Amino acid sequence: MFYIIGLGLADEKDITLRGLEAVKGAARVYLEAYTSILMVQKERLEAFYDKPLIIADRDMVETQSDEILHRADEIDVALLVVGDPFGATTHTDILLRARALRIPTRVIHNASIMNAVGAAGLQLYQFGQTVSLVFFTETWKPDSFYDRIKENADLGLHTLVLLDIKVKEISDENLARGRKIYDPPRYMSIPRAVDQLLEIESIRKAGILNADTTLAVALSRVGGGDDQRIVAGTLADLANSPEESFGEPLHSLIVVGRRLHHLEVEYAEDFAVDRERWRNVASTVYGCALD
Amino acid sequence: MFYIIGLGLADEKDITLRGLEAVKGAARVYLEAYTSILMVQKERLEAFYDKPLIIADRDMVETQSDEILHRADEIDVALLVVGDPFGATTHTDILLRARALRIPTRVIHNASIMNAVGAAGLQLYQFGQTVSLVFFTETWKPDSFYDRIKENADLGLHTLVLLDIKVKEISDENLARGRKIYDPPRYMSIPRAVDQLLEIESIRKAGILNADTTLAVALSRVGGGDDQRIVAGTLADLANSPEESFGEPLHSLIVVGRRLHHLEVEYAEDFAVDRERWRNVASTVYGCALD
Repeated sequence: MFYIIGLGLADEKDITLRGLEAVKGAARVYLEAYTSILMVQKERLEAFYDKPLIIADRDMVETQSDEILHRADEIDVALLVVGDPFGATTHTDILLRARALRIPTRVIHNASIMNAVGAAGLQLYQFGQTVSLVFFTETWKPDSFYDRIKENADLGLHTLVLLDIKVKEISDENLARGRKIYDPPRYMSIPRAVDQLLEIESIRKAGILNADTTLAVALSRVGGGDDQRIVAGTLADLANSPEESFGEPLHSLIVVGRRLHHLEVEYAEDFAVDRERWRNVASTVYGCALD
Repeated sequence: MFYIIGLGLADEKDITLRGLEAVKGAARVYLEAYTSILMVQKERLEAFYDKPLIIADRDMVETQSDEILHRADEIDVALLVVGDPFGATTHTDILLRARALRIPTRVIHNASIMNAVGAAGLQLYQFGQTVSLVFFTETWKPDSFYDRIKENADLGLHTLVLLDIKVKEISDENLARGRKIYDPPRYMSIPRAVDQLLEIESIRKAGILNADTTLAVALSRVGGGDDQRIVAGTLADLANSPEESFGEPLHSLIVVGRRLHHLEVEYAEDFAVDRERWRNVASTVYGCALD
């Protein structure tokens, strides 16, 4: 049997009992590299499971899946991934490959940012499609996310924006010298994400994102652990907050839609950079009737 | 501390280690009634936790939350809910009440249908807003879900449709005799849901739902356990399948949108009532280029 097991969003305690049972019973256990970078150290997980883990980077999962799937028709093999196996990064490729090889598969679900985003108090019913925001460079500023946010905004819906991660990058200097030395992983910060959103608004000018009148919520490590952070405010509030206030990566951002309900405002105000401004914009711009 | 703990979607093994730890340490543990009806028996959970559970029905959670929260500023109290605490049914009311009483709170996340729906192989990125479908009666057929599905469909997006549950209903006969005897809970079946969708289409006629050319996927108990069921087909395929083929409640339904990707078609075809028809409609109606 080939298992893909979601680890949830914060640390080693977010695995389910069903997931832990599968890890314990597996002959080989792979850990997707994103996971080890983002949550807890490989060694900490190995000690916790009392079992060695094999690091599988994204390339390996995508292009060398046969190595991972080797003999999984006879023995149990597990692949651990951050969040849920069908969350922001899906694993349909390796599951399709397993199916082609007639290997039985089982997916063990967990919380992912796609549902844990509800922790901000905004109703999951009121979210439209989710978008991704990649690191802009001088010459490459892909902006299709803007059309998706606009489609959601036109319907009054919230948008979950997933922020880019850069792993296994090689600096220009190392590249020029032919050295295969990877830079440390980079995660997009909330202030940077807001800057990029506003940069595209200044070019596209559909009027859907405004520093002072668009509300947003930033989230990280939403799992119930101590390092969870939720910060709410106008786009300007978030852009001007120090990076540390948003906690450890990976970060996500919600752009709040016009169907905003007063209960959503009240719940999220506890996370506001400036409670008065949060309520004021919700009331005067979004038209929420607050007490 | 007041904990709300998500139990996931299938059975007692879907709780996370963090959740189990909180249950073990709590002085009082409440089990939301939906949960006990839907997943596993209260007694089975009590044996599993080695702890008595107090049943809390939805009324109690909503209107008598102070009883649940009693002394939670001094001792640990836990409320167990199906799925995730911010899933289809949210628990912001009781959390807001706890906050007003200055009781510290913690939410322990888990998979919910809002993200586990990815098990069908349809990308979560491609879903629009989620809708609920309630049991129609002769005189009451609320159809606002149709507008939401249309908004999603116009953008080419998939729609997750959550199906109604009726609990604590009293039959007309018992009501007439003044007997407070509750009927067994009722869950909307997939064939019934499809009938209701098509009934509203026949009235509203926007052309977004068609028995033979609209694809859909039915899901139940998506948790990685043995009773998980996923069934894909045209709306007619699903309406004409026996209820047993959809497994145990609670059921959910995905209405497939036009942005359908060929990988989504390939992944879900394994669940198809009729593989040939699934591929044929995906190719000729949805315009997917399949091998």
